Amino acid sequence: MKLTILFGGASFEHEISIVSAITIKEKLSSFDLSFIFCDGDHKFYLIEPSKMKAVTFSKGEHKKMPQLTLTQGGFLQKSMFSTTEHKNTVLNLIHGADGEDGTIAALFDFYNISYIGPRVNASIFSYDKRHTKYYCAARGVKYVKYEALHSDEHKDISLDFPVIVKPASLGSSIGVSIVKEESGFDYALDTAFEYDKNVVVEPFIEGVKEYNLAGYMAEGEIKFSVVEEPQKEEFLDFEKKYMDFSRSEQVHKAEIDDALVAKLQNSFEKVYRGMFEGALIRCDFFVVNDEVYLNEINPIPGSMANYLFEDFSRVVEELSGSLPQKKHIQPSYEYIHNISSAKGK
Amino acid sequence: MKLTILFGGASFEHEISIVSAITIKEKLSSFDLSFIFCDGDHKFYLIEPSKMKAVTFSKGEHKKMPQLTLTQGGFLQKSMFSTTEHKNTVLNLIHGADGEDGTIAALFDFYNISYIGPRVNASIFSYDKRHTKYYCAARGVKYVKYEALHSDEHKDISLDFPVIVKPASLGSSIGVSIVKEESGFDYALDTAFEYDKNVVVEPFIEGVKEYNLAGYMAEGEIKFSVVEEPQKEEFLDFEKKYMDFSRSEQVHKAEIDDALVAKLQNSFEKVYRGMFEGALIRCDFFVVNDEVYLNEINPIPGSMANYLFEDFSRVVEELSGSLPQKKHIQPSYEYIHNISSAKGK
Repeated sequence: MKLTILFGGASFEHEISIVSAITIKEKLSSFDLSFIFCDGDHKFYLIEPSKMKAVTFSKGEHKKMPQLTLTQGGFLQKSMFSTTEHKNTVLNLIHGADGEDGTIAALFDFYNISYIGPRVNASIFSYDKRHTKYYCAARGVKYVKYEALHSDEHKDISLDFPVIVKPASLGSSIGVSIVKEESGFDYALDTAFEYDKNVVVEPFIEGVKEYNLAGYMAEGEIKFSVVEEPQKEEFLDFEKKYMDFSRSEQVHKAEIDDALVAKLQNSFEKVYRGMFEGALIRCDFFVVNDEVYLNEINPIPGSMANYLFEDFSRVVEELSGSLPQKKHIQPSYEYIHNISSAKGK
Repeated sequence: MKLTILFGGASFEHEISIVSAITIKEKLSSFDLSFIFCDGDHKFYLIEPSKMKAVTFSKGEHKKMPQLTLTQGGFLQKSMFSTTEHKNTVLNLIHGADGEDGTIAALFDFYNISYIGPRVNASIFSYDKRHTKYYCAARGVKYVKYEALHSDEHKDISLDFPVIVKPASLGSSIGVSIVKEESGFDYALDTAFEYDKNVVVEPFIEGVKEYNLAGYMAEGEIKFSVVEEPQKEEFLDFEKKYMDFSRSEQVHKAEIDDALVAKLQNSFEKVYRGMFEGALIRCDFFVVNDEVYLNEINPIPGSMANYLFEDFSRVVEELSGSLPQKKHIQPSYEYIHNISSAKGK
């Protein structure tokens, strides 16, 4: 099938999006793929598949390739003598800002472009960790308690150390610190505030069990991946995560009993249904005393969490066939007509 | 000052956006205004100010006017021999879908266009009445209790009649019914589901006191309008609201004591701060036994609630001067460079 991979973006995760796209290219080699790169200035380029290498972008060679603009139904490529339209379904693979904050989703909704990825609402509830917690509270999904801090206000926290400090709206562990005692807290805050003016602070739970589960909706049913117990040190730093985004080998199932798998799937479904349709998401859970807590939602996981699925090509085909259609509202002029005729105009 | 009014949109509130724009044109007659119309097919047109009449759009005469496209920094007008850029600050006056659901906000963020109106996050928390309640719960703002229903599931409600049934994501009372007893409930649900697959049901509180308060942030401070006690029958239906959107005469203050005004302002501030910066919003409150409950947030109120302010031109000037700037993230290629050089490439 035909599919366009959109990657890049004006984001701190720009580079890992490039890595993700290169990985997906290998994993979906049976597809008829095209590649659209969004650069840091929000310009779109059509990338020659054979040039899908990291250095193409770091050296700026993409700038020699055809530039695209958005139009109703797709992307437009104009040259001196002709205009070509690119109208495939797009896999939104921009991690972080632009891709996961609802911007690309809104653009594609507005321009009526079919896409795999979170819709605007889903983006808002997953991009900012505070909003994820608002959402969990409303949906009856357990989450780790937290305090939110803003860079403009000085506030003491009431949590005991150790804590974990995170920018509210970044993925890939960027700006995240574990703080063992109060003396390190201000430095950790400063680090996080470099990336976001909102920060969340959570208790750091030593030795907590962590499980990742991905899934998507096709034909009204949620299809789950295997459950993975991520190999980790205290937590993955950006460099390790960067490597992690190029993963393509299937993982081994976590050795947990069916009851826990069912609990994880149940929490996943509460998060997904009625919100994340159209996206393949990965939920990262903590398990403490047999209780499942949502840690975070990755609405565009690194290399689409391909390594958690047995047959990733089929996953993408199924998902493409079940994308939500936005209902188009055609405005009426009923009241204006009524008023105009009442006025005799 | 120069200002572009954006109105229309593919929305059930398309017509009232036109009425709002015509009203604002009168109210801001000292401004150097231009007008951009978004039609039901998401095409933009530059409207000749003298043609700012309802019939221009109901008769389709806008289609003879110059079409515009989005570009970095503004709108582009191309003719046979020249290209003109329109780079003014835009007042987003599209009510309902497109304008209030985060779509236009995301477009303007992406294309780096300065605008008055709710940002994407703020749109998501005000457009869907369920999300407003999630947000209130998180911010410690009291709200009317509710049950959410989805068109695909049959569920009994536990609220006592009378109730009020509302599509989750529409303003202007479209699709809203008051249901006095159970026999009328299914019909009210069907009506609401015509507009949205999600519906909220709330207790209908007979004779509740209702107050509206508008405001905006300028120079770090919230500037409040007067408090209005809206004249109402049971509630305003669409036709009355339609007329209501063309209001331009200043209202009389509600006759309430300073303590209640302070309570309303306090709730407004909890809603606004850290979320609605850049927008002039109107919050509609209920007061029951001296307790303030948020009923709904209008992030783009009809004709910008101009009638609640003494000097509306100054309001728009102040707000234009205090618009939040989105931090531009310029991607780096640090990791790719490191890895490439480690590999000797």
